[in-house]
Amino acid sequence: MHSVNLGLIGGGTVGSGVWTTLQRNGPLLGARLGVEFQISRVAVKSLEKARLVEFPESIVTDNWRSVVEDPAVQVVLELVGGKTVAREIAIRALELGKPVVTANKALLSAFGEELFATAARHGTNLYYEASVAGGIPIIKVIRESMVGNRILQIAGIVNGTCNYILTRMKLEGAEFSTVLRDAQRLGYAEAEPSLDIDGHDAAHKTGILASLAHGFWVRPETIHTEGIREVTPLDIQFADRLGYTIKLLGMVKELTWQTGENRGQRAIQIAVYPALVPNRHVLASVNHAFNAIAVSGDVVGETLYYGRGAGAEPTASSVLSDLADAALDLVHGCRRRVPPFVPHAREANLIPMAEVVSRYYVRLLVLDRPGVFAGVANILARAHIGISSIIQPEGHAGEVVPVILMIHDATNAVMQKVLIEIEQLPMIKSKPVMFRVEPFE
Amino acid sequence: MHSVNLGLIGGGTVGSGVWTTLQRNGPLLGARLGVEFQISRVAVKSLEKARLVEFPESIVTDNWRSVVEDPAVQVVLELVGGKTVAREIAIRALELGKPVVTANKALLSAFGEELFATAARHGTNLYYEASVAGGIPIIKVIRESMVGNRILQIAGIVNGTCNYILTRMKLEGAEFSTVLRDAQRLGYAEAEPSLDIDGHDAAHKTGILASLAHGFWVRPETIHTEGIREVTPLDIQFADRLGYTIKLLGMVKELTWQTGENRGQRAIQIAVYPALVPNRHVLASVNHAFNAIAVSGDVVGETLYYGRGAGAEPTASSVLSDLADAALDLVHGCRRRVPPFVPHAREANLIPMAEVVSRYYVRLLVLDRPGVFAGVANILARAHIGISSIIQPEGHAGEVVPVILMIHDATNAVMQKVLIEIEQLPMIKSKPVMFRVEPFE
Repeated sequence: MHSVNLGLIGGGTVGSGVWTTLQRNGPLLGARLGVEFQISRVAVKSLEKARLVEFPESIVTDNWRSVVEDPAVQVVLELVGGKTVAREIAIRALELGKPVVTANKALLSAFGEELFATAARHGTNLYYEASVAGGIPIIKVIRESMVGNRILQIAGIVNGTCNYILTRMKLEGAEFSTVLRDAQRLGYAEAEPSLDIDGHDAAHKTGILASLAHGFWVRPETIHTEGIREVTPLDIQFADRLGYTIKLLGMVKELTWQTGENRGQRAIQIAVYPALVPNRHVLASVNHAFNAIAVSGDVVGETLYYGRGAGAEPTASSVLSDLADAALDLVHGCRRRVPPFVPHAREANLIPMAEVVSRYYVRLLVLDRPGVFAGVANILARAHIGISSIIQPEGHAGEVVPVILMIHDATNAVMQKVLIEIEQLPMIKSKPVMFRVEPFE
Repeated sequence: MHSVNLGLIGGGTVGSGVWTTLQRNGPLLGARLGVEFQISRVAVKSLEKARLVEFPESIVTDNWRSVVEDPAVQVVLELVGGKTVAREIAIRALELGKPVVTANKALLSAFGEELFATAARHGTNLYYEASVAGGIPIIKVIRESMVGNRILQIAGIVNGTCNYILTRMKLEGAEFSTVLRDAQRLGYAEAEPSLDIDGHDAAHKTGILASLAHGFWVRPETIHTEGIREVTPLDIQFADRLGYTIKLLGMVKELTWQTGENRGQRAIQIAVYPALVPNRHVLASVNHAFNAIAVSGDVVGETLYYGRGAGAEPTASSVLSDLADAALDLVHGCRRRVPPFVPHAREANLIPMAEVVSRYYVRLLVLDRPGVFAGVANILARAHIGISSIIQPEGHAGEVVPVILMIHDATNAVMQKVLIEIEQLPMIKSKPVMFRVEPFE
């Protein structure tokens, strides 16, 4: 039996989860791997604070450097969250040649390239399975299991808060703001919810997956990002009538540029937006705080990975998997066997969202009057945009009613222009709302 | 760039698929791994036969030994199927210290322990991701990603033929025999279909997954195995009315023995049978030839993995993933980093199916007459079995009608006994049919 000493930095939810599960399943890990894990040092922010776990006094400190620099510590678990101290911890450990395991997607998204370079320079490794989609082993799957595939598409439900809100809106017909408040009360959403509901967290994760799939590091600011604030119960209900469920998706697509001077070139679209998913697709039945990621490869076809995207224990499961890899790599003397990231493509043809051809769901609020629709139809016709279906609930003359248009195949730029024109029509009573439709064909 | 020479044995569907995809995506694999793969020798059964792929004459032979024993060949791909020659090939390669990649679940199921021991003795490795569920990376997931988890339950749709048949029966209301003939015509089912539709293929795969999860090698003959021949469109329709879909499941459950002298002990149930799956569960929406495996761990909670379970390309995707691992292990000098199988438990408490407590769906055909149900109710009451619901379509007096009972929590032994008693009642017009209900709570 080999023994591997760990330094745990962070005594919060994730750190405590890792501590507890390692106590519980340490013997099982030992039996499976031939490795005994020992958390020999723990660093927390403050020694005064009450914690989920009572760490033994003899090993706990509020000085992370003393843990990272302890010669006995062989692997560093960076589980503090945030980007500033977390970055210092990771860099210092890597500089000492120690492998780092992290669950920190914000850190990775912002400083991934610096961390990878530091790890390479010092002949060590960085493991980050827990940074995307909690307990779903999506990093290992894309990097190792699908290594023989060109990745054609990734479509991920990677933010549990948004999925929880959208699921409850669908099941209960409730308003976004009502469910959000409830989610905040239950701890599923932060008091400052923007990181989740405006899509930024999903963009961090989508960027990491896109990077692994396509071999160039994606900066989060290049990702077109929309959140779920504009989704109403009405949209969810109409989508269902049309056979769809609205989900916040992180999308990474390989596609062919269809307009302008790049026409015919291959390009990568990376974006986060609420989209209509066909009810027959497995993603549509991923409910509540669960995550799922559909990945299509040119060899394997469509695959999908489902599980809990957050929480102490699902995250701990991925941290333990990384720990196992780190320990095996140490024990077998192959620390860089699978590097954290292999850049193998140039900064590829990232297609701007404006140039992407999509299908759309559009909701208008119109004053119900004879001839009301001619204005809208004319604008669409002039832009050469086809309508695949219209739902117009019967209203009384003079009432304001919703009209739903399903539109196929127009660039996002053309759609933006058209929606601005439509908004100016006299019978249109509010800003048109538009969501993309993902056909999953 | 490292170079790794492969010996490919088998020029059938899978062998050709691996050849073709390696030609196509070799450069991508090279960029990602820093390894250039070279299929330097190919062995086929007969040089005369027309093939999907034209292998270059200079490298092809009908003598597998010359390939396996060629000193230039570093990794052997055993893709011939069957158990006799395949076993010889694998054993010989392992004896020479060469890593073997196989897609052969029958081989593994029958001779797994011998192959693992041979690999260990000669300091080499055996890789078999493609042997279970085609393109789904379930071996790596259970062995590496869930390594920190006690595996509480595995529920797998692991036979594409059965799932194709059950899906079409549900969507079209068609009879089993009609769909089976059609599946045979389309190549989804063999002319001799028993291996698939009687559950044996699913049992091979379920045994491999159970072995990995629980750390003792499961012999297929210890797996209680039922197929789908008894499922009728009527059952599928009634199940749907009750909120369920019928799927052939490979089940591996950790449970508590509830009867007899072992009462209170932990035990493992391993079985294959058609079961009612709640429609709200993702497994219920896995259709046609797709596979999916739900795995619950004590740390991660419920996870699920979905993809194509067979076919040249999905299988090739898993073979390429194994090839990548084999090559990295060679290049980094860590050939036994993750051994093919680590026995870490004794031949555990395997619970016989008779002792397992399940829920049931029971279909009776009865002569519709006043008082018809008293006899059935008395038998169930005497056995202390509760009925959670009854569906009895209205018929005309004197007609033979189906009656559906949903029964909760009885051992399989008691149910067998009760069904035999019920069958002997005068108004029962055919052998009662019973399927288990998996609640996924």
